[in-house]
Amino acid sequence: MEKLRQVEARTGRKPNILIVLVDDMGYGDPGAYGGGAMLGAPTPNIDSLAARGLKLTSAYATPVCTPSRAALMTGRIPARSGLTRPLLASDKPTKNPWADEVTAAKLLSQNGYVTGLSGKWHIGEAKGMQPQDVGYDEFRGFLSVVSEYTQYMNLAKYSQLMLDAERLKTFKGLSEYNGIVEGKKGGDLKIAYKLETPQQMGNVDQDFANFSVDFIKRAAQARKPFYLIHAFAKVHFDNYPGDGYLGRSAAKLPYRDAVVEIDDIVGRLTKTLEETGQADNTLVFFTSDNGPEEDSYPDSGFTPFRSGKGTTWEGGVRVPGIAYWPGVIKPGRVSDGLFDLMDLFNTSLALGGIENKIPTERYIDGVNQTAFLLADDGDTCRQAVFSYNQADFSAIRWANFKGYFKVVQSEQPFANISMSTYGPIAVAPWIFDVYRDPKERLTRSNGDYEWLYGPILQLQAAHAATFVKYPKKDIGLGIGGGGDPR
Amino acid sequence: MEKLRQVEARTGRKPNILIVLVDDMGYGDPGAYGGGAMLGAPTPNIDSLAARGLKLTSAYATPVCTPSRAALMTGRIPARSGLTRPLLASDKPTKNPWADEVTAAKLLSQNGYVTGLSGKWHIGEAKGMQPQDVGYDEFRGFLSVVSEYTQYMNLAKYSQLMLDAERLKTFKGLSEYNGIVEGKKGGDLKIAYKLETPQQMGNVDQDFANFSVDFIKRAAQARKPFYLIHAFAKVHFDNYPGDGYLGRSAAKLPYRDAVVEIDDIVGRLTKTLEETGQADNTLVFFTSDNGPEEDSYPDSGFTPFRSGKGTTWEGGVRVPGIAYWPGVIKPGRVSDGLFDLMDLFNTSLALGGIENKIPTERYIDGVNQTAFLLADDGDTCRQAVFSYNQADFSAIRWANFKGYFKVVQSEQPFANISMSTYGPIAVAPWIFDVYRDPKERLTRSNGDYEWLYGPILQLQAAHAATFVKYPKKDIGLGIGGGGDPR
Repeated sequence: MEKLRQVEARTGRKPNILIVLVDDMGYGDPGAYGGGAMLGAPTPNIDSLAARGLKLTSAYATPVCTPSRAALMTGRIPARSGLTRPLLASDKPTKNPWADEVTAAKLLSQNGYVTGLSGKWHIGEAKGMQPQDVGYDEFRGFLSVVSEYTQYMNLAKYSQLMLDAERLKTFKGLSEYNGIVEGKKGGDLKIAYKLETPQQMGNVDQDFANFSVDFIKRAAQARKPFYLIHAFAKVHFDNYPGDGYLGRSAAKLPYRDAVVEIDDIVGRLTKTLEETGQADNTLVFFTSDNGPEEDSYPDSGFTPFRSGKGTTWEGGVRVPGIAYWPGVIKPGRVSDGLFDLMDLFNTSLALGGIENKIPTERYIDGVNQTAFLLADDGDTCRQAVFSYNQADFSAIRWANFKGYFKVVQSEQPFANISMSTYGPIAVAPWIFDVYRDPKERLTRSNGDYEWLYGPILQLQAAHAATFVKYPKKDIGLGIGGGGDPR
Repeated sequence: MEKLRQVEARTGRKPNILIVLVDDMGYGDPGAYGGGAMLGAPTPNIDSLAARGLKLTSAYATPVCTPSRAALMTGRIPARSGLTRPLLASDKPTKNPWADEVTAAKLLSQNGYVTGLSGKWHIGEAKGMQPQDVGYDEFRGFLSVVSEYTQYMNLAKYSQLMLDAERLKTFKGLSEYNGIVEGKKGGDLKIAYKLETPQQMGNVDQDFANFSVDFIKRAAQARKPFYLIHAFAKVHFDNYPGDGYLGRSAAKLPYRDAVVEIDDIVGRLTKTLEETGQADNTLVFFTSDNGPEEDSYPDSGFTPFRSGKGTTWEGGVRVPGIAYWPGVIKPGRVSDGLFDLMDLFNTSLALGGIENKIPTERYIDGVNQTAFLLADDGDTCRQAVFSYNQADFSAIRWANFKGYFKVVQSEQPFANISMSTYGPIAVAPWIFDVYRDPKERLTRSNGDYEWLYGPILQLQAAHAATFVKYPKKDIGLGIGGGGDPR
């Protein structure tokens, strides 16, 4: 691609890749996606990336945290890697899923890049499953998820755990890493400090921001291209304000204050790129790992779509997706072209000039979207998005249609994960038109969509066939796993 | 205001006012409000007004068409003017509501402006209630609403009316103006042509656009300031494509094709302002008369909020609101400050320099929002928005809270007007936080909002008191009317 050759000729090296991943942010939270001021939490820095870059309106993640991150890093549907659900502190997989997985970070690190992970990991706590074991030259963050710490911090909310000494001891004993940790490629994790108070918890994103800023500066100084995933702790429940952020949102609510903080940090990262002369040599991709968490509502984000995290309804899997690269990506672009976060695997390797290093003995679901993201009138290189509930195939997005084969049905209006049932459709697949009916309220709209059975079933069959040649991996997580993609 | 003085000094006349009013467009339809490409109907021209002007995220209309238009024109809550519900062809008000109402158009026409209404009227068909009778120097459009014509056009949909000659004759006989009509101040209406076919219906907005373009050009040539309401026929159901618009949206749906056409016409109006040298001397205000029509779903718009047209839920009354005035309104402003469409009455008169002509013997609910719209850091001049169902007081929006005293409850998921009940809250007002919970799902959120009863009830009492001094007007529409605002 001519644009890329020009950037490389000017800088003398491959471009940097900065993936900014928020935890549980809703599609509708940023102002550019209809939220912002409307929700009492303006996001001028995120909106500015969208206005000066490419705003994707059909970027997809998986329904929950761990599989989304695994897919983004490996380019593979989680059913293939075995990382199909959040790995919790007490989880003991019978097989290390990472033993035979390859991350984009690993390949880039082997080919001239310095690679880093800042913030949340949550894809395995045991030795051999930690970030510095699987391709990240540098890691500073925590291994699990905000709520594993906050449950021993907030007496008003978690008194039944905190006021019982034995329960508390057991809970805390589930992990040996109850704090901020650091690791360097091949080395052991070191605990920087334990997380004990809501104030500490509220400030972790500033810690991660400091690390990322320093990482970018060092890479620029060393004149080495970098691949950095900045994975926020926020806005996963429970949200405690960072210092100076209490009441910073017009909404005066912890969740919204957290959105303001995230937006500030996005601005800080962008500014660091500019100050180090890296802005026009860096693809920034801003996104979220899944839809808003409805079980913790209203300490939760906003989606205009149906349902939320933990489901394959649009509210669970459609996420903000902004690609920003001044001088390369045309400002003000908006596209409804399909993008799956696992495409960042292929796209990052293509930008790093090592698409040829992508392993060929396994099935890679990601697609190189360089042409889509960078060409002024780029169109998606992806034909369809396949959504899973854990290891079970659930739905297909094709064009502006969504076909469901298995669905999560909430038992209560605000409960998605905790109080939901999950099962196959009774007769024919349910088909929705997400242009006409973005909230997915009308199944098959009086038969208007019957012509869609053909294309949808054809896609499903072709997808299922890939699992015959490349079977699913079972890492012994006890739930999920098994079954064909239908 | 210094900015206004400078514009007036430069042009030698008062500024123009162009109000662009879409029928039943959803808050979420324009790209700037989260829709656009996401819905398969990009709106680059509307989005450009927002990007180069002020995007309001809390602009409010009334729940339905006629009262919204009446409020916008008179600055008065419809319960005061008697225009509390759509005036249909068979309606015979016992009293002409316009006899003692004053429109902004009338006052501006008396004070140097040329005033026009292009498109939909729907506030009275009888002589004395037509646009040219109540302040508009020029009118070209139709008197009622799209669906009063389309019901005798689409055999597949309305066979039970169209295939029964007697019913059809009765239906068509309800109005003597089944077509596009023209009127000039003080004169009689003339029928330009009858509306008989879906193709004619699909093209009416091009007709209105031609009229508006010509009106603007003539006003510019005459060097007279103008006040023009461009009231689209679209996107009220049933939507038929204008010539060249079939399949123009990525969604390939009549409603979305209509959105594309509306956006094109907005671009054409803006371009006309530029070509006539009027752009920097004109306040453009883009909005919709109420939320999307859910009874006709999915030939209907998109709102991220609860419910739709015909209700005082946010989905019924929150509308897009964009103020655009290059050189005067700072580009890229976004505000959640409260704005009621009836504020356009006071604001228009203030811009015309005749705020002192606002009648004082009646209650005016509108507020002069010039400072809010034009100052670079302008804040709303409105304390609260009061929402009504017909003549009944229903809800208050104050800060980011909404308090309900009477609610519309849908009996079926997609029915709002046709299948709904309406009644008072059982115990205390229902209070929602529209920042935390924009879809209004959590009533009082576990008691968190009890402190709000004080401010909300105080506002309600003060508002109710205005009706003691200035009683409601009853024009004999048979439903609605009566009762105090509680």
